[in-house]
Amino acid sequence: MTATPTRGDKFSFGLWTVGYTGIDTFGGATQPALDVVEVVEKLDELGAYGLTFHDDDLFAFGSADAERQRQVDRLKGALKATGLAVPMVTTNLFSAPVFKDGGVTSNDRQVRRFALRKVLRNLDLAAELGAATFVLWGGREGAEYDAAKDVRAALERYREAMNLLAEYVTGKGYGIRFALEPKPNEPRGDILLPTLGHAIAFIGTLERPGLFGVNPEVGHEQMAGLNFTAGVAQALYCGKLFHIDLNGQRGVKYDQDLVFGHGDLQSAFSLVDLLEHGGPGGIPAYDGPRHFDYKPSRTEDAAGVWQSASANMRMYLLLRERAAAFRADPEVREALTAAGVTELATPTLDEGETYQDLLADRSAFEDFDTGAYYGAKGFGFVRLQQLATEHLIGARG
Amino acid sequence: MTATPTRGDKFSFGLWTVGYTGIDTFGGATQPALDVVEVVEKLDELGAYGLTFHDDDLFAFGSADAERQRQVDRLKGALKATGLAVPMVTTNLFSAPVFKDGGVTSNDRQVRRFALRKVLRNLDLAAELGAATFVLWGGREGAEYDAAKDVRAALERYREAMNLLAEYVTGKGYGIRFALEPKPNEPRGDILLPTLGHAIAFIGTLERPGLFGVNPEVGHEQMAGLNFTAGVAQALYCGKLFHIDLNGQRGVKYDQDLVFGHGDLQSAFSLVDLLEHGGPGGIPAYDGPRHFDYKPSRTEDAAGVWQSASANMRMYLLLRERAAAFRADPEVREALTAAGVTELATPTLDEGETYQDLLADRSAFEDFDTGAYYGAKGFGFVRLQQLATEHLIGARG
Amino acid sequence: MTATPTRGDKFSFGLWTVGYTGIDTFGGATQPALDVVEVVEKLDELGAYGLTFHDDDLFAFGSADAERQRQVDRLKGALKATGLAVPMVTTNLFSAPVFKDGGVTSNDRQVRRFALRKVLRNLDLAAELGAATFVLWGGREGAEYDAAKDVRAALERYREAMNLLAEYVTGKGYGIRFALEPKPNEPRGDILLPTLGHAIAFIGTLERPGLFGVNPEVGHEQMAGLNFTAGVAQALYCGKLFHIDLNGQRGVKYDQDLVFGHGDLQSAFSLVDLLEHGGPGGIPAYDGPRHFDYKPSRTEDAAGVWQSASANMRMYLLLRERAAAFRADPEVREALTAAGVTELATPTLDEGETYQDLLADRSAFEDFDTGAYYGAKGFGFVRLQQLATEHLIGARG
Amino acid sequence: MTATPTRGDKFSFGLWTVGYTGIDTFGGATQPALDVVEVVEKLDELGAYGLTFHDDDLFAFGSADAERQRQVDRLKGALKATGLAVPMVTTNLFSAPVFKDGGVTSNDRQVRRFALRKVLRNLDLAAELGAATFVLWGGREGAEYDAAKDVRAALERYREAMNLLAEYVTGKGYGIRFALEPKPNEPRGDILLPTLGHAIAFIGTLERPGLFGVNPEVGHEQMAGLNFTAGVAQALYCGKLFHIDLNGQRGVKYDQDLVFGHGDLQSAFSLVDLLEHGGPGGIPAYDGPRHFDYKPSRTEDAAGVWQSASANMRMYLLLRERAAAFRADPEVREALTAAGVTELATPTLDEGETYQDLLADRSAFEDFDTGAYYGAKGFGFVRLQQLATEHLIGARG
Repeated sequence: MTATPTRGDKFSFGLWTVGYTGIDTFGGATQPALDVVEVVEKLDELGAYGLTFHDDDLFAFGSADAERQRQVDRLKGALKATGLAVPMVTTNLFSAPVFKDGGVTSNDRQVRRFALRKVLRNLDLAAELGAATFVLWGGREGAEYDAAKDVRAALERYREAMNLLAEYVTGKGYGIRFALEPKPNEPRGDILLPTLGHAIAFIGTLERPGLFGVNPEVGHEQMAGLNFTAGVAQALYCGKLFHIDLNGQRGVKYDQDLVFGHGDLQSAFSLVDLLEHGGPGGIPAYDGPRHFDYKPSRTEDAAGVWQSASANMRMYLLLRERAAAFRADPEVREALTAAGVTELATPTLDEGETYQDLLADRSAFEDFDTGAYYGAKGFGFVRLQQLATEHLIGARG
Repeated sequence: MTATPTRGDKFSFGLWTVGYTGIDTFGGATQPALDVVEVVEKLDELGAYGLTFHDDDLFAFGSADAERQRQVDRLKGALKATGLAVPMVTTNLFSAPVFKDGGVTSNDRQVRRFALRKVLRNLDLAAELGAATFVLWGGREGAEYDAAKDVRAALERYREAMNLLAEYVTGKGYGIRFALEPKPNEPRGDILLPTLGHAIAFIGTLERPGLFGVNPEVGHEQMAGLNFTAGVAQALYCGKLFHIDLNGQRGVKYDQDLVFGHGDLQSAFSLVDLLEHGGPGGIPAYDGPRHFDYKPSRTEDAAGVWQSASANMRMYLLLRERAAAFRADPEVREALTAAGVTELATPTLDEGETYQDLLADRSAFEDFDTGAYYGAKGFGFVRLQQLATEHLIGARG
Repeated sequence: MTATPTRGDKFSFGLWTVGYTGIDTFGGATQPALDVVEVVEKLDELGAYGLTFHDDDLFAFGSADAERQRQVDRLKGALKATGLAVPMVTTNLFSAPVFKDGGVTSNDRQVRRFALRKVLRNLDLAAELGAATFVLWGGREGAEYDAAKDVRAALERYREAMNLLAEYVTGKGYGIRFALEPKPNEPRGDILLPTLGHAIAFIGTLERPGLFGVNPEVGHEQMAGLNFTAGVAQALYCGKLFHIDLNGQRGVKYDQDLVFGHGDLQSAFSLVDLLEHGGPGGIPAYDGPRHFDYKPSRTEDAAGVWQSASANMRMYLLLRERAAAFRADPEVREALTAAGVTELATPTLDEGETYQDLLADRSAFEDFDTGAYYGAKGFGFVRLQQLATEHLIGARG
Repeated sequence: MTATPTRGDKFSFGLWTVGYTGIDTFGGATQPALDVVEVVEKLDELGAYGLTFHDDDLFAFGSADAERQRQVDRLKGALKATGLAVPMVTTNLFSAPVFKDGGVTSNDRQVRRFALRKVLRNLDLAAELGAATFVLWGGREGAEYDAAKDVRAALERYREAMNLLAEYVTGKGYGIRFALEPKPNEPRGDILLPTLGHAIAFIGTLERPGLFGVNPEVGHEQMAGLNFTAGVAQALYCGKLFHIDLNGQRGVKYDQDLVFGHGDLQSAFSLVDLLEHGGPGGIPAYDGPRHFDYKPSRTEDAAGVWQSASANMRMYLLLRERAAAFRADPEVREALTAAGVTELATPTLDEGETYQDLLADRSAFEDFDTGAYYGAKGFGFVRLQQLATEHLIGARG
């Protein structure tokens, strides 16, 4: 059965995901915390290939060195025993009271310095564990009130911080790249770098932009009503898709972190299609970890937690099958051609054509029959969407 | 009275704004079209300094050359008679049937070539009229269905088009800069370059990025639930605020194009504060046109149209007064300092400080008292927001 | 093949749906208008059973009596020839300039009286054609500004109008019931009776509430981010689901009117499941017309229009198949039981139990082990959602 | 100074509001818990008249009777010492693990019975403290997945519960009325009775509907993009505004619970105008408590908490002043008349007019000049909105 995950599928999970205890703004924990060793063993059993974590997931904020090391050692032992990887590590700059106005852009300079130190320390651990990617989610970097944050100064501090981190991994020879994770709001009223577009624009201002990409999350872009697949395509176009957070969201509301595919299913399908078949010649457009950043519903018990972990992987694999069938269907190919989808790869200008040449081409303007587009020359997009949907729901062979 | 507009305030209006006839998806025109000469004269009378337009606003799509020239001449005559400027021109690539799948990213290559020609022609007119900025709103560049558009190919065609336009104005020596206008959706299900972040990220891929900036519109960013003032601040941070579209929007819904200030009032206040007092030392952070891209409500008659035009300017001026009082208030200054808003301008690192230095600073980590932030060290942001709101509603002196 | 529509499926279409010419706020028509006879013949050919229309769809606003009658006769001829029904009729109170502030709640009393007359006239036609349901969508009943509309007075006028209409059909013995169609906004900034909840609450104030129900539309409720299936369930619970508008919407944005199933697919699936299997013992919970109120994408030509019409029906039928398989799956039944979904039908109180009895039951409080719900007693909702999704995508047998 | 609160202003606060410790989904407490006695004394000092609370705010969930009584006695002592009232009490059915699938509509019958007992017990306390209103916010009554909840069964259980509660207060002679508090989502993916419309519709199904009204919350309705003022007006129209929760929200996103007026300011202004001047002849339309259900920002310390409490009251009072000036302005009155706002109070039908009479009135249809509404007969709504906004920002006298 192809819907059974294997390591080659590169599925990874955050320690905080299956480890979510159920605390939210309106209620307390419904689950006890999980031990990291149990998580590694269970993920291995379910077919995942990697575990990721925030420092504070592994050892409580403010842990003494010995306790920290003990937990690192336990993790290492479990990794060795199972063969699981740690492809990504990240730092928690949003839970402790000290970060109540953010970390690297807090209005309090002492906090900013502490935040940098906390990240640097965790970079060492990331390097030690062989993580290739370091994610930075600035969940508290933002404000509720416009007067409370000088956004340009904040971006300048953000930039200063990113430049320092890049200097550090370069100086240390760590071979780690950074992936910024955008989010529009929650837990702050507005968060800096609210979408992947804003994050890529920001990266363009950095001293070592090549070390920085994005880690877009399904739900985060959808919280702004944006098309996640289109956004990921732009990130790919810019060469900036360094990592990806898969989960589910049902529209513009609080961050739901549902299982991948349990939110906007049409979008999940087109995303898998893009990741798996979007490269030249239909090869995968992205070869990094398929990372699930979700929360088991607070209504579940331990069995439900692990069922939800499996559900993420199974949804991805099922959608991958459907996307493959979609791409292989001759009628789909014909419909894509009829709709001009493939033609868009053809440059608008002829090879070597200048603006002077274009201006001289009467067929492009003076003799072009714009009236022919009224009542005719339809694109057939609805038919295409119907074909896509039928493949998604397994209704075509 | 300071709330009376003068030319120095640099207020400009689109010809299509006061000229909106009231057509929408659910109803026909409630107003006759306005003549461009009348519009110029009336705007002059009301205190505006500039008019902007799409080609199709001035002369109908497909007009013969003579008709086109006649309208250009009439506009020129009115400009000369009044002294009004044309600071910006733009091209309509979204209304005619030929653009039903967009212009420069249509799946139909012939349409793309025609779209380019239409823009080039209008660039000549823009140059002739002395416009410094050319806006490009790709309202139909997008799709309803993920399968219908290869987003990476579309971005590549977008890029090709932008590069050609830049080549053209450079070759012609026009001294025109381009401002891309983002919008998340409507009239397409999803539009390419949905936010100002995505647009600036895209500009980073162009051959002549210096010729391109953004023209963010209040309502467009707010349709994605994004903080407009924060977005404009990022555009300023990137040196990309080439033009701005002011109007009003009441949340995540269809594009309302209300009068500026008749939508999210808190945001309008902080925006004017940023534009007028956000530069170093409190000078204006933006000195371009204050351009209103709004629609008179469809319920109005001719008198109401002009009242709505005036209302835009008056709202801007009133908010400018309140922002000035806010910035001048000693209690506000004290509160900004207490909240650390001003401290954020201080670099996180000492001058010349390296990561080695930072790592050696025990006060930054080992000796830093993170516990002190629990139950104390409040930022006073609510007090600041209250002060801002009281200034906004004229409740402090 | 079960996905081929037949009359027994009770699929109906608005004349304005396939007849949409493509006009929206940003562009003109891309399609010529369709003739009603052609529409009837084509719908018949495709397997629909009914046509619905606004008066102004059939004969232009302000048509002379002769022209009106000519069109009515042509429609009747086509109905007779094909056997198609007219299960529903509605009145356009939103397109003409006279309705710019609405119809029955316009601030202009003359308009209100005219609106009533227009509805009364169309009620006669509805009765003549045998329509059982008369839909009222108050698309312009609303305001952009709070000061512009006294909402309580508007509701009182709305009520007055509804009471008159009920008096009319009663007096005439028409046997017609009214279905109010809620929408939160667009084309007005805010529309009265924005959700099906508000509409049912309003119906409770009418003189003849039994004659009034709702006509909820997929996209309208989803424009407010509301769960459409849950809303329809509440309408059914109140006995108020008189009619239903099926289409597709992709989140909180402008009204998209996509093909049914081309929007939120998870919601479309659960809706069909509710309509078809939600009644006692799994019988249909709704037996009225499955009415498509959608728009063919503006990018299509005539062939695309009819493909889109077929796509609506095919999506419904495919989802009906999947819902049937979901309900028949023993594992699903087991999971529903495990999750307590079926138990919710059991009253909370024992038969005849009073509050005194409940207070005396120590097992309900004093001896109840609330702690047992921590870390255990999971509901298994994620597993259930995974099963539902797998059925939706045809991944289980 | 009129912006100083007095008891006559009837401002009340939830114990959980100023007592918010800062826990949210992404971070822990930033503030210690406050003692109820301190809260009562401080609110008294600041000018509030009432305190409200959930049972679990006063004594921890599962408290032994002695501890519970101790806290009740301490509260009573503080009330006696200060003269503060407890106008409203509510029950927490959403924080403890036992309520992870809700209380009165949990799929687990034992939970439903426990929930009822918990409410009954708290009703006794409410009665003992003289509360006139008992609020029911069913924050966990809902689901993330459509398959997980039989909505009609859930509504039937909800109804059963409400009927029991009504029976109880009637039997006990408590003189308490219930106010249902709607919310569209968060902490559940979708919550039952998502808007005030749905809640009022539901009330219509109860055995004693007169005992039930709504407690709409600013932010809850705005999370669905709905116009709060219009919704409150409908609640008033139905005689169902039993209580109100004032706070601030910035659009469709997570529940922000900002200070009243720190969210959508235009809406806050029109709301105060409605409450204070919306009754016949301009008298208050609502005379119950002005209850603040907000959260001090998590960035604040103790001083900031109390400043935020004061800010709520001050905003209300300042907006009340501005609304009074708006209503008193002769130009506003003239503009309201010109816009037909006042005319809407005039019935559409003449006194005693029947539909036969209306049909006989040729001026209503045959002779009515609908063409006169094209290009003329504007409503002047933009002018009105400008006048309202100028009053709001203190720009007129």
